[in-house]
Amino acid sequence: MSVVEIPDGSPFGVENLPYGVFSEAGGRPRVGVRVGDSVVDLSVLLGDEVFAEPALNPFMAQGPARWAEVRERIAAAVTADVPDGAVHPVRDVTLHLPFQVGDYVDYYASEHHASNLGRLFRPDAEPLFPNWKHLPVGYHGRSGTVVVSGTDVVRPCGQRKAPDEQAPTYGPSRRLDIEVEFGFVVGVGSELGDRIPVEAFAEHVFGAFLVNDWSARDIQAWEYVPLGPYLGKSFATSISPWVVPLAALQEARIPLPGQDPEPLDYLRGGGDWGLDVEFVVEWNGEEVARPPYREMYWSPAQMLAHMTVNGASTRTGDFFASGTVSGPEKRQRGAFIELTWGGREPIQVKGEDRTFLLDGDEIAISATAPGPDGARIGFGEVTGTVRPAR
Amino acid sequence: MSVVEIPDGSPFGVENLPYGVFSEAGGRPRVGVRVGDSVVDLSVLLGDEVFAEPALNPFMAQGPARWAEVRERIAAAVTADVPDGAVHPVRDVTLHLPFQVGDYVDYYASEHHASNLGRLFRPDAEPLFPNWKHLPVGYHGRSGTVVVSGTDVVRPCGQRKAPDEQAPTYGPSRRLDIEVEFGFVVGVGSELGDRIPVEAFAEHVFGAFLVNDWSARDIQAWEYVPLGPYLGKSFATSISPWVVPLAALQEARIPLPGQDPEPLDYLRGGGDWGLDVEFVVEWNGEEVARPPYREMYWSPAQMLAHMTVNGASTRTGDFFASGTVSGPEKRQRGAFIELTWGGREPIQVKGEDRTFLLDGDEIAISATAPGPDGARIGFGEVTGTVRPAR
Repeated sequence: MSVVEIPDGSPFGVENLPYGVFSEAGGRPRVGVRVGDSVVDLSVLLGDEVFAEPALNPFMAQGPARWAEVRERIAAAVTADVPDGAVHPVRDVTLHLPFQVGDYVDYYASEHHASNLGRLFRPDAEPLFPNWKHLPVGYHGRSGTVVVSGTDVVRPCGQRKAPDEQAPTYGPSRRLDIEVEFGFVVGVGSELGDRIPVEAFAEHVFGAFLVNDWSARDIQAWEYVPLGPYLGKSFATSISPWVVPLAALQEARIPLPGQDPEPLDYLRGGGDWGLDVEFVVEWNGEEVARPPYREMYWSPAQMLAHMTVNGASTRTGDFFASGTVSGPEKRQRGAFIELTWGGREPIQVKGEDRTFLLDGDEIAISATAPGPDGARIGFGEVTGTVRPAR
Repeated sequence: MSVVEIPDGSPFGVENLPYGVFSEAGGRPRVGVRVGDSVVDLSVLLGDEVFAEPALNPFMAQGPARWAEVRERIAAAVTADVPDGAVHPVRDVTLHLPFQVGDYVDYYASEHHASNLGRLFRPDAEPLFPNWKHLPVGYHGRSGTVVVSGTDVVRPCGQRKAPDEQAPTYGPSRRLDIEVEFGFVVGVGSELGDRIPVEAFAEHVFGAFLVNDWSARDIQAWEYVPLGPYLGKSFATSISPWVVPLAALQEARIPLPGQDPEPLDYLRGGGDWGLDVEFVVEWNGEEVARPPYREMYWSPAQMLAHMTVNGASTRTGDFFASGTVSGPEKRQRGAFIELTWGGREPIQVKGEDRTFLLDGDEIAISATAPGPDGARIGFGEVTGTVRPAR
């Protein structure tokens, strides 16, 4: 038997217990839980075949009563001796996409971000469209290009046209950017024609994770009218390997900053809570921003209720992301187009003036939230390095 | 042994041989081919396990050489005696979603449709945005709500705001519509970072089918800026049960109507062919429109090349649809918002003035294309009945 060490102050204490999919050299991908600097193999620890699967989907589909039971058993087991062979140093394993993605919906739930983008993309108009404060604006992203943290991002090519150019040209994006987002994955789906009310959020959503929605601003600006972003976003969306269960985020719940006008009934009720999650963005190892999730206008429960108000079904593995997390301060902006005001106000990174991403740049986004008794809940990180266009 | 009867003039002759997934009472879903008014069970006819699967995906993933070989074997086998138990009258079987859907991209490739919608949604502006003739405008739809022909469509609820209303209200859509579209499914996928050039279309695309992209125009009009259609479309997208292989559409290839300005290089080359497919729309059994696919501005090969030009990967089961098929004449329009000019010019259906869909309405969309030696290639139909909002 072994003991799982948990360093003092680790953001992966027993209050957290995020799930992921890992493999050792030559081994099959299977489900593990992060504890301290270790991954504990749940197929060994709990002896259940559902954890021998290469994705969280079958476990997530079992529902909230089962999630709670497993969480209790893990907490008890990892603080006692665990079977030999169940514990692996996290540095020795490969982390995989934690779940098989169904549909991926991307929202636009930060008022600061939406206002900034409105000013940058449509300088002569009101920054927010009339619908923005009535509903969480969102759209579907490409689920087949959702990749796990650490996957290289190849600079996309496509059509770009600057406002002062007569016609579009083809070539590599010159305005490659990030979007710091927070993601929520559906564990228990819903039937076609049914809705998920705000109060039922925790009956369906399994957990949360970090998202970097890589964005090619020049491709996006030219293509996005009238049907929305497409190739400017669809080349890659990176997510963190650890899914933090909702149960670990109880202490992080806070009131929303405030909604005016009051939303329609189907967006009200028990769903008006936000989360006090703080993100950190590092560009080539240097911290450049701290986007605060507590500033988001629309709540996670409102986003899910809106997604299904028209009777759209949901499936295990569907996820939605919040849209870029940006706060009111400059250094709280979660996209470089905002942080450098369209590239016109460079920021210093490692002593150089920088605007958009260059080949070789590495981005690391991490986040933590308050846990019980002063503990911190860690989300790990989502990283990616930009590779040259092919 | 049995003989498969093919009535004279059947659009399901040996020139066609579309694939689908069917089950008999109590049986498992498996792959069949439509011949005349029969479904031939390919797991029995060819004795191959790939046809005992409940979706076309494993067969589609085997690639074009295998598709050609199987097509030849089927054509030879069904014109001779076939094993007992392999042939079922199509009226006796249940038809299922023919493939497991990966990502679903919806284009906007008809100049007539895009111009009409532009005039209706933005009456004070140019109908086409500046990008429209430079790239096939498209966006991602919801793949989890793609349903097979015959599935009831529940009228969606959501936020609606007419231009003369001060604030949005919640309720059932009052402007429920159809969109007649043509779909293409990917058999052989492509890797992240790679592209599919126009010339490689037939190495990746398995076949074509009919799509009805149900649309709630009031929900769509209020929500769609700036990120595109979302809940106005995501409640249901119906597809026909039969996938017609590309090989059956050789005779239907025609030149595009013409592209001006000339598209960028990556959209040129061998991909500038259209398809002479004629659709028929029946509303409660009465023919109301005949949208012609030959009028489409962007070609299928251009749509696929554009989808992957940024390095987005594709998977077996990904599909893209053309967007509404509309021709220059009024009775060639593939959406009721165009056919009734925003509801202001009702059309007669069964002797009544009609604009948008009422509960209980049934829509049937069918299509045929020219085949060899004067034969017609049938696509069958995609049907759906509107049920009241819940």
